Amino acid sequence: MVWATLGTDMEIICIGNELLIGKTLNTNANWMAKRATSSGISVKRITVVGDDINEIAAAVTEALSRKPRFIVTTGGLGPTFDDKTLEGIAEALKCRIEINENALKTVREKYESLAEHGKMEKAELTPPRIKMAKLPEDAEPLPNPIGTAPGIVTKVNGTSLLALPGVPSEMEAIFEQSIVPLLKKEAGNVTFFEASVFVDDVMESTLAPLIDQTMRENALIYIKSHPKGEEDTPHIELHFSMTARDSKAARNLLGKAITQLSELIEKRGGKIKTPKRRSGLP
Amino acid sequence: MVWATLGTDMEIICIGNELLIGKTLNTNANWMAKRATSSGISVKRITVVGDDINEIAAAVTEALSRKPRFIVTTGGLGPTFDDKTLEGIAEALKCRIEINENALKTVREKYESLAEHGKMEKAELTPPRIKMAKLPEDAEPLPNPIGTAPGIVTKVNGTSLLALPGVPSEMEAIFEQSIVPLLKKEAGNVTFFEASVFVDDVMESTLAPLIDQTMRENALIYIKSHPKGEEDTPHIELHFSMTARDSKAARNLLGKAITQLSELIEKRGGKIKTPKRRSGLP
Repeated sequence: MVWATLGTDMEIICIGNELLIGKTLNTNANWMAKRATSSGISVKRITVVGDDINEIAAAVTEALSRKPRFIVTTGGLGPTFDDKTLEGIAEALKCRIEINENALKTVREKYESLAEHGKMEKAELTPPRIKMAKLPEDAEPLPNPIGTAPGIVTKVNGTSLLALPGVPSEMEAIFEQSIVPLLKKEAGNVTFFEASVFVDDVMESTLAPLIDQTMRENALIYIKSHPKGEEDTPHIELHFSMTARDSKAARNLLGKAITQLSELIEKRGGKIKTPKRRSGLP
Repeated sequence: MVWATLGTDMEIICIGNELLIGKTLNTNANWMAKRATSSGISVKRITVVGDDINEIAAAVTEALSRKPRFIVTTGGLGPTFDDKTLEGIAEALKCRIEINENALKTVREKYESLAEHGKMEKAELTPPRIKMAKLPEDAEPLPNPIGTAPGIVTKVNGTSLLALPGVPSEMEAIFEQSIVPLLKKEAGNVTFFEASVFVDDVMESTLAPLIDQTMRENALIYIKSHPKGEEDTPHIELHFSMTARDSKAARNLLGKAITQLSELIEKRGGKIKTPKRRSGLP
């Protein structure tokens, strides 16, 4: 049996003014964080910046300086003036942006297919459409199975830098098709396991030393308390998690820690509710 | 009439492993971004890091180096071992953490009141409870109207650094009571105005030059397209926004830009749906 902490790490950069004015809830970051974690990769930081070349370049430069194994950006790959991600990345990498023939081919074919199916008059390659095929030099396009703007991938020292569109369905499709296999390969079959129990009638401040004790005696398990009620009418989720290659052993260890902490809590008059889930993430 | 761009800027730092494993959707960042924007403050960056003193300290140090007027953190103020925000802030400010008498008083009173009301046996100030009153020196507590852990405020050069709990109801209560008045004072009655129209049957790549033209001719208005369908069955939200002191003038300018772009789009065969809303944010 081989135990491991989450193998390699990722940073996520989300680009879009709509996130900074609170117009859009950042479901993309949540989706990617969940999918990366369940693939055995540890997300270390999520950064959100606006549609501004300097802001994007700064976020990418700073992320690269921390040397994560993966950086994934989302947003800003489309045809309009405010889609500035590739220019920002080129600025961070101090390289030029140029028409990528592979990307241009997929963009051209997409519009030709639309014209053939009567969805547009003629498949003209206007400047906004050509823009989607202008990539930082050395970057290669990632196929977009359901939209027009391709994702991109490039490697900078040890970091794979990947850029995806912000439309959730397109981001998810490219992530599943092109990124998850990379993550799983890198993680080497390490999986994230988690389980939750819910505690009523014990204050979080009373739980604190019991959690400490359980974590000391179950070194591979991380326990985090999430208060859902108020301190005076306590309803607290206790979230147990660990990473491992062996799912049966992981479930046993999680079960042991849950039992141990539950008993400590019941001695203090707390009520434990049945575990909600006890498996790897989806 | 005085026009202005959004007066001063804010960074948001969200702290919690649950955000990085995708367990929790970051509704706190969304709520704060919306509330800051509607108070006339421009959010420049949102950073999410885990429950780790070094990660928190790094995020705070980096945010301070960009000299925003406000930095607001959320999460990590509670009684458990993984509540590390104040230690992280102290590390960033290179100061000690010490019991703050004002904070200790509110924590003590909270537990005395719970004991009086029979919610706990006796109002013991255990180490996890005292922990909530250990603040970076020079920081002052912000009253928490509905929970136990106080927020904190401290000033570093020109930046007000504010730390709030992660429980949404507590974060929102402190934000409304103690932070919104600071933001409004700083913004000086500048408000954010926005409106959306929805366009069917024109591809985003076709809209791009029409948006460019409308923005060139309406210099105070920012227009962003949000594709909701696919490129071949286009359904696109056009979001118009601006900041101003004068709401009537702002609505007139937004209306003019909307009319102008709508006419350009209808000439290209697009269908425009009635504006959904045309006011300041809530």
